[in-house]
Amino acid sequence: MFGADAPHLRILRLLRDDGPVSRAELGDRLELTRPRLLAEVDRLVAAEMVAEAGMAASRGGRRSTLVEIHPRLRFAAVDLGASSIDIEVTNGRLEPVAAYREPADIRSGPKAILQRVSELLAKARTDGAYQRLDAVGIGVPGPVSFRDGVPVSPPIMPGWDRYPVREVLTREHGCPAVVDNDVNIMAIGERHGGVAHSIDDFLFVKIGTGIGCGIHLGGTVYRGVDGCAGDIGHIQVDANGPVCSCGNTGCLEALFSGAALARDALAAARAGDSPALAERLVDATELSAKDVADGAAEGDVVCIKLIREGGRRVGGVLATLVSFANPSMIVIGGGLAQLGHVLLAEIRSVVYRRSLPLATGNLPVVLSELQGRAGVSGAAVLASDMAFEQAS
Amino acid sequence: MFGADAPHLRILRLLRDDGPVSRAELGDRLELTRPRLLAEVDRLVAAEMVAEAGMAASRGGRRSTLVEIHPRLRFAAVDLGASSIDIEVTNGRLEPVAAYREPADIRSGPKAILQRVSELLAKARTDGAYQRLDAVGIGVPGPVSFRDGVPVSPPIMPGWDRYPVREVLTREHGCPAVVDNDVNIMAIGERHGGVAHSIDDFLFVKIGTGIGCGIHLGGTVYRGVDGCAGDIGHIQVDANGPVCSCGNTGCLEALFSGAALARDALAAARAGDSPALAERLVDATELSAKDVADGAAEGDVVCIKLIREGGRRVGGVLATLVSFANPSMIVIGGGLAQLGHVLLAEIRSVVYRRSLPLATGNLPVVLSELQGRAGVSGAAVLASDMAFEQAS
Repeated sequence: MFGADAPHLRILRLLRDDGPVSRAELGDRLELTRPRLLAEVDRLVAAEMVAEAGMAASRGGRRSTLVEIHPRLRFAAVDLGASSIDIEVTNGRLEPVAAYREPADIRSGPKAILQRVSELLAKARTDGAYQRLDAVGIGVPGPVSFRDGVPVSPPIMPGWDRYPVREVLTREHGCPAVVDNDVNIMAIGERHGGVAHSIDDFLFVKIGTGIGCGIHLGGTVYRGVDGCAGDIGHIQVDANGPVCSCGNTGCLEALFSGAALARDALAAARAGDSPALAERLVDATELSAKDVADGAAEGDVVCIKLIREGGRRVGGVLATLVSFANPSMIVIGGGLAQLGHVLLAEIRSVVYRRSLPLATGNLPVVLSELQGRAGVSGAAVLASDMAFEQAS
Repeated sequence: MFGADAPHLRILRLLRDDGPVSRAELGDRLELTRPRLLAEVDRLVAAEMVAEAGMAASRGGRRSTLVEIHPRLRFAAVDLGASSIDIEVTNGRLEPVAAYREPADIRSGPKAILQRVSELLAKARTDGAYQRLDAVGIGVPGPVSFRDGVPVSPPIMPGWDRYPVREVLTREHGCPAVVDNDVNIMAIGERHGGVAHSIDDFLFVKIGTGIGCGIHLGGTVYRGVDGCAGDIGHIQVDANGPVCSCGNTGCLEALFSGAALARDALAAARAGDSPALAERLVDATELSAKDVADGAAEGDVVCIKLIREGGRRVGGVLATLVSFANPSMIVIGGGLAQLGHVLLAEIRSVVYRRSLPLATGNLPVVLSELQGRAGVSGAAVLASDMAFEQAS
């Protein structure tokens, strides 16, 4: 289905993901002829993308020299949420050398938010994390035209529509930049270093402030014609349900999401239905998903019921998507993944009951391994891929 | 996203789709250097895949010779439905040189059905349609392992599970064979010569005896991990709906499909609700989708209501799939496409109302152009691609 990537890209990715390797092993693993491999590696050494790393252990014949991804490479990975900024600066192996996380309201607009991103990256430089960046990857909580590097009609990001995010970052840091949807970068992160490692076809479902789905098919993210594939939060699941922020009624995320769960928890506490939630409301004016998770862990019946009802809603939508896309894994991430086993059990139950046996015969439904780091991890992968492509 | 195909494949496809072309124009359009192009064409002429076709009109300089797909090439295209066999034998341009259609019950099992396919192809040979076949493409009404060339747990095809369809056809005809799901070949046909021409991302929704969806993403059919992607007929749309043949309740195709519509029409006729249907039942023991379509055309209120209710059900599922996949077109085909404008209007209305504006801003929902020929057309495309790939 997919053509072979260029040799230099395959070499750089292997060194990024697997660490120092001898030239001999590199040639074997990438099935490149020795002259071709040596020429490519020499070129990448000259471009300071690859560095010599001493001698390899003998394989019987002449000893081969190790090469590694150049130790000076640095990537910036940014994950913008509805209410937070996460930043990592990584080396060429995508190991973090600096990390920052702080609350921020995406509705402050692109200038204020990107200004703050710049300040945090300047701080990282002052802290000695990098001298110059080789690429920046950024995820935003809304649809993105991946080709143009701009958000497109993002519902919860006023002022960001078509704002030239990629151009601004490229100009500011003098390096390539890549912009993607936040759920897509989480899927990419989870595939690179998480539970979906080396899985070609899977869905990453983020349940947080909103609900979205990263679609990984045939080894790559599928973004849709307008960049809004996976926008499953506004699928109608109950024609008589509550009104959603989008104006329609009964959308999935109007029934189950961080905001919906806080609303339902508050109602249950006030109605006196849930001792666990009522107790938590004594010292607070609002409740959160964490309160519901803690209540459920204590065995509070209403908390467990709220989580199961949410899982049933999400499971119903996922059953439909499983029938449609026939993936080999579903990964559940985002803030509400903290609801853990109760949520997962209900989702699994609905998906397995409602989809055809052939599609669910071997379909793991699992929690994200990287959790809060999935986004920045994926942004770093995208940034490095971009830098590697441009190294030709 | 996709790597470039091999030059010989691109040459053969262009000659198949666009007819005789001069060597000079071929080189320009495929962006191949002249020595490379001439060597490839010479090789294809020697392999009898390409033939000389006289001189081209002058382009000012030396006159170039035309080449065409070899006139002796023949492909067999077979579309097995739940209750029919369609066969076309085509030339290298995929123009039919023989066509047969007859009723057949897929439940007769693979031996009887493939025996009948062989007899029809033998008849085509006797009729002079071909001397030998270069490839056979076949679609079956159930999930298929495309890689293995076998049906996999097909619900309405008893006896076909893992039957070596590809192997049997290859042995019988001494040429490559390719097996796919019937809705996938319809999608391929519609993209090659129908309303989805040159569209990379679209959904082909077949509404007939059952309901299925061909998923065309990034220029190729997406088949899913187990070959059952697009199996949308068993998505639950009403937890209180009728029991489906699969054992679940309220599946889409239990509520709207050829069988469901016939059932509802019969009930309406017997209850005296529909003059048009009651009149048709006088001379018959059962009713069909055609009766409902004819009744609706006469303005019968119940017939129109049945079609609109079905459209609403299908539209609800498609709205979900649009939010998920963000395609650039939806094509409606299969027997119930004869319900025409009333059905289409209702589907459109629901899809546009329920999906995000960004995903539906420019989303045509249209009827199949090829109709009954979509399947065999796609099977011929698959067969020719297979033959071309093996010509390397």
